[in-house]
Amino acid sequence: MIVLVGGSGYVGTAYQAYFNSRGIPFVSVNRSTLNLCDKEAVSKFFKELKPQFIVNAAGYTGKPNVDMAEKEKTRCLLANTILPGVLFEVCTDLKIPWGHISSGCIFSGSRPDGSGFTEEDEPNFSFRQNNCSFYSGTKALAEEIMDGGTDCYTWRLRIPFNEVDGPRNYLSKVMNYAKLIDVRNSISQLDEFVRATWLCWEKRVPFGVYNVVNPGSITTREVVEKIRQRRMVNKEFQFFKDETEFMQIAAKVPRANCVMDCSKLLKTGIPMMEIHEAVDWALDHWKKAS
Amino acid sequence: MIVLVGGSGYVGTAYQAYFNSRGIPFVSVNRSTLNLCDKEAVSKFFKELKPQFIVNAAGYTGKPNVDMAEKEKTRCLLANTILPGVLFEVCTDLKIPWGHISSGCIFSGSRPDGSGFTEEDEPNFSFRQNNCSFYSGTKALAEEIMDGGTDCYTWRLRIPFNEVDGPRNYLSKVMNYAKLIDVRNSISQLDEFVRATWLCWEKRVPFGVYNVVNPGSITTREVVEKIRQRRMVNKEFQFFKDETEFMQIAAKVPRANCVMDCSKLLKTGIPMMEIHEAVDWALDHWKKAS
Repeated sequence: MIVLVGGSGYVGTAYQAYFNSRGIPFVSVNRSTLNLCDKEAVSKFFKELKPQFIVNAAGYTGKPNVDMAEKEKTRCLLANTILPGVLFEVCTDLKIPWGHISSGCIFSGSRPDGSGFTEEDEPNFSFRQNNCSFYSGTKALAEEIMDGGTDCYTWRLRIPFNEVDGPRNYLSKVMNYAKLIDVRNSISQLDEFVRATWLCWEKRVPFGVYNVVNPGSITTREVVEKIRQRRMVNKEFQFFKDETEFMQIAAKVPRANCVMDCSKLLKTGIPMMEIHEAVDWALDHWKKAS
Repeated sequence: MIVLVGGSGYVGTAYQAYFNSRGIPFVSVNRSTLNLCDKEAVSKFFKELKPQFIVNAAGYTGKPNVDMAEKEKTRCLLANTILPGVLFEVCTDLKIPWGHISSGCIFSGSRPDGSGFTEEDEPNFSFRQNNCSFYSGTKALAEEIMDGGTDCYTWRLRIPFNEVDGPRNYLSKVMNYAKLIDVRNSISQLDEFVRATWLCWEKRVPFGVYNVVNPGSITTREVVEKIRQRRMVNKEFQFFKDETEFMQIAAKVPRANCVMDCSKLLKTGIPMMEIHEAVDWALDHWKKAS
């Protein structure tokens, strides 16, 4: 039996769909079924259920965006740090293997030579670096708590998207934001992310941290150009002049735009589509929200 | 009605004694009576009770010492960051004035000229500075969450002591540790701390951060000399050569030894005894644990 924590979120829903499509039995737990921040309660629940593997897809991202985390700090900290911390402590005690969905947004920019950050690099957008949003701080703090764990995967997701229009889909955001900022990012095709993370467990690749993004990086202007070519949106895209103007007008806290290296994952034999191809595919199969 | 959160701890017990001695009615709440990390539950509780003022004396310090926090990170974070964060959010919503007991251990050392840190100084021993113990990080993060609050006191306690022998009393620790490290610190006489913080509210001094320590600073060797003079302990005191030796042999994480300035508090007219006098008084009235 697999336990899926946070199954009702954007990422959790994709896990549910994947497990269902593959006939993998799972139990979905969330805040209403279990006090996920109560170590004793969580321990008791897992002792009884004896899950084979646990996926933690729960997390607080802030609605409509990460700026909201600055106003909901305890909620953000509970979901992004305490919850994985409790799972880490309980799973270590009970020797239950598990996977935590972390985020690439604990990095900013790229390596000095322009290449992506690897799993060996220290997060450079965190409380420890004193430069981050509260959201990124809580995600990095969770990784710090989990550091040294031997029975868990830390899977870093970065700006999820797929072909299904929706408020959390990166491509929908690009289409709908009034004004964009041109930045280079690594991003994760959501369904590939889910499959790749599950294959980590299924293939028993070594536990540890994995950047689970599509190979390569892409700029906002490149994405916009792909949308324009397909005449998917009937508007002129507006861009902020630069990050300074973006920060002055549209954002309260800095964003963690970054390039990430996923070769550690690819070396295990688990494939991810090249980033431009993945975006092309999603746009070519676009399912508009009704 | 006053609510005392965390009334069963070392500091909370001193508040209970103080309230009882002054005939101040209060309700003590703790984890077993209320899920203090559940914002909705806390909000509902306070809406019904309508407290006039809340004192948060709850906190995780680690037993036998702060090294334990490195092993109990989620517990430490829940008690030291989430709980005051929830109280901050609820009290702000409900406009309930309150006071949080923070810690001087978010500072290390002294100002460049040797004087104490004031309330204007940024914590220099925190996650943000990437140099601290997990414990200090959680205390500083709570102050960060509470920053900008308008209806709350942040009272910084620093190494509590009084004349009652016990495992949490600084003077008992000095008498009982196998080996000591000679460092300069500001410290807080516990009962004076409790009275001073309560007087902040009773006298309606402006809300904000206050370093509630005895004026001055004192070294471990000075304290030892006072104990020796009184022939209170029948042993030769041993000292580590320096902080490096102390860290190699006795400690896992760096300690936040620091000098703090309490003139902001003293200017309100609330007195604290000079630090050497306060230690002398405690030792002269020493009540040995049976």
